Amino acid sequence: MRRVAVAGVGLTKVSEHWEKGLKDLFAEVALKAIGDAGVEDIDALYVSNMGGATLQGQLHLGAMMADAIGRRGVTALSVEAASASGGVAFHEGVKAVASGFSDCVLVGGVEKMSDGLPEEVLSTLVMAEDQEYTAYTGVSKVGLSAMIHRRYMEEFGASAEEVAMFAVRGHEHAVGCSHAQYPFKVAIDRIISSPMEADPIHMLECAGVGDGAAALVLRPAEAVDGSVEVAASTVATGPYYLAGRSDILTFDAVKLAAERAYKMAGVSPQDIDLVEVHDETTITGVVSLEDLGFVEKGKGASYVADGSTMRGGEVPTNTFGGLKARGNPLGATGLYQVGEVVLQLSDRAGPCQVEGAHFGLAQSLGGLGSTCAVSILRRV
Amino acid sequence: MRRVAVAGVGLTKVSEHWEKGLKDLFAEVALKAIGDAGVEDIDALYVSNMGGATLQGQLHLGAMMADAIGRRGVTALSVEAASASGGVAFHEGVKAVASGFSDCVLVGGVEKMSDGLPEEVLSTLVMAEDQEYTAYTGVSKVGLSAMIHRRYMEEFGASAEEVAMFAVRGHEHAVGCSHAQYPFKVAIDRIISSPMEADPIHMLECAGVGDGAAALVLRPAEAVDGSVEVAASTVATGPYYLAGRSDILTFDAVKLAAERAYKMAGVSPQDIDLVEVHDETTITGVVSLEDLGFVEKGKGASYVADGSTMRGGEVPTNTFGGLKARGNPLGATGLYQVGEVVLQLSDRAGPCQVEGAHFGLAQSLGGLGSTCAVSILRRV
Repeated sequence: MRRVAVAGVGLTKVSEHWEKGLKDLFAEVALKAIGDAGVEDIDALYVSNMGGATLQGQLHLGAMMADAIGRRGVTALSVEAASASGGVAFHEGVKAVASGFSDCVLVGGVEKMSDGLPEEVLSTLVMAEDQEYTAYTGVSKVGLSAMIHRRYMEEFGASAEEVAMFAVRGHEHAVGCSHAQYPFKVAIDRIISSPMEADPIHMLECAGVGDGAAALVLRPAEAVDGSVEVAASTVATGPYYLAGRSDILTFDAVKLAAERAYKMAGVSPQDIDLVEVHDETTITGVVSLEDLGFVEKGKGASYVADGSTMRGGEVPTNTFGGLKARGNPLGATGLYQVGEVVLQLSDRAGPCQVEGAHFGLAQSLGGLGSTCAVSILRRV
Repeated sequence: MRRVAVAGVGLTKVSEHWEKGLKDLFAEVALKAIGDAGVEDIDALYVSNMGGATLQGQLHLGAMMADAIGRRGVTALSVEAASASGGVAFHEGVKAVASGFSDCVLVGGVEKMSDGLPEEVLSTLVMAEDQEYTAYTGVSKVGLSAMIHRRYMEEFGASAEEVAMFAVRGHEHAVGCSHAQYPFKVAIDRIISSPMEADPIHMLECAGVGDGAAALVLRPAEAVDGSVEVAASTVATGPYYLAGRSDILTFDAVKLAAERAYKMAGVSPQDIDLVEVHDETTITGVVSLEDLGFVEKGKGASYVADGSTMRGGEVPTNTFGGLKARGNPLGATGLYQVGEVVLQLSDRAGPCQVEGAHFGLAQSLGGLGSTCAVSILRRV
């Protein structure tokens, strides 16, 4: 298996991009990543996207984007695993290079949520759950998260404020990040006094709706100098239904993907210098930190509240703001995460820089944690 | 790169499966393929599907199907490239084994078109084309095919009957095929007198609407005895828009995917003993045969009409009926094709058996030929 390096990164600001279509958003970051990698030709293209069919009436994005970026001919396809799509596409890109099938792969994610009416976005989000058993009840994605959130508070005695601090920390980190949707601080009082999205989750504890695109170029490690290498890339699944879990406070898929990734990279959580986790609500961020092994089960919320996840803290987390503050353009999110880790490990994180990091980890969730993608990157 | 073998196959009859959901259809063929392979554990699952979001309101099929077949934990994701989804998923499964990331991969495609109203199916099909430039005009997928069909007749002097013979041949081959949607002969007169779907394409020249699922198990070749090996697997793209093509009678993606596949397998078209091509309309079947190199450009229709593509002919084509007679459950179709080649090369094709075949080729198209997947399989 060939070692794989990330040779280029392209990110756009998460925002409401009314003047741009899917192709514009995608092409912008794709060409940026190709330029950053200093290459001309790519031989494969993975597109990650979740809502194309329902929000734009658009499928078959692989060939479309290959044409849009002037690279007709290449192998191209779309990959989807709900909001883990980006992380999963990265995993497929890594395999393409590792196997020798490709020598220069572009992995790009794009999502344009602003095109959808609020109810269309809501129904797209919940398509990550089973229509026949879960979604048909009318429950929203945040409503499902709320069950975990309430149970967590009950079980571990965490206060609403402690859990909500995950959002405060994200916003603190996003200050100065040029690609963040909300690069400003938000006080805990404002979050706790925002309307309930689904009791006990406040509106300002949820990642918002945004448009964005992110792209990476992957090449064999031996072809790239002084780069960031892929130390591990894994995807795992867990019980699809909350009702089918013995414990809804643990994401089995996260534990499994992390365990495999640590083994593949030959590291333990203690070796990881920074982490990007999937905080689509504050509680999914908290539970993810625990299941990745950074903090004991039940202690995640207080760990975040006490500052351990800040730059300079024990485990700098969501160093550009995470889903809450950088933004969560579904199919693109996982690639923002990996791209951010790459920026950190190549000292290109600007005001968000974590000093001297050698290993970074990115984690994406699909559904309520039924898919998890974990990538570990290493500074070379 | 490790050599890859197909260790198991599972196909279900293409039909209107009113009593079964996506999960039921998928699980049935997945468990059949796993049983056929004589394995218990798989470590990765690729799901190919095109219309889940629009016809069932269902995304995130990877984790869902992993759970449905009792294999929680495995790596799982969905792959989409319009009606080439199955062929493209196969390509990804091959990479997973070739790279060493996986030792036992299940690739399964599923589509349930009967759930959709006719207009929903039509609009899903045309999502393979650009909404902003093509689909918004109201053109249908068959309407686009009709432009190619008319131009072909004009340019090469092919008669309506000659092109329509592609459908006659498919139906002849499907007789006795237990998984075919329409396993009976249809006379040329009946096809030519059927209503125009989009002039000059008659209704009976188009693949119908159907539900189906197909699955394959892939393993490293050294782990499987006396099996069918993957000699080549390629995916290529071409111009996304008919308007962007210098010649609409050639699918650049097909030529490119075929050229790469022949090179990878070390064979030429003359070495291929049977072929499954993507005849979503008669003309796409004809043009595909030409662009794959089996017959000179412009001679494809008469080649089919004169019987050269029949069992016992020069290039037995669509030996179980093809999209027209076996059926075309979009996301599953490419895996039916590969599965059928495997059945042929392992002498399990029953009444459809082509004797003594050593190399078989399967070709899938996404959009109007803007994506093409080619797989070449070899009897070991």
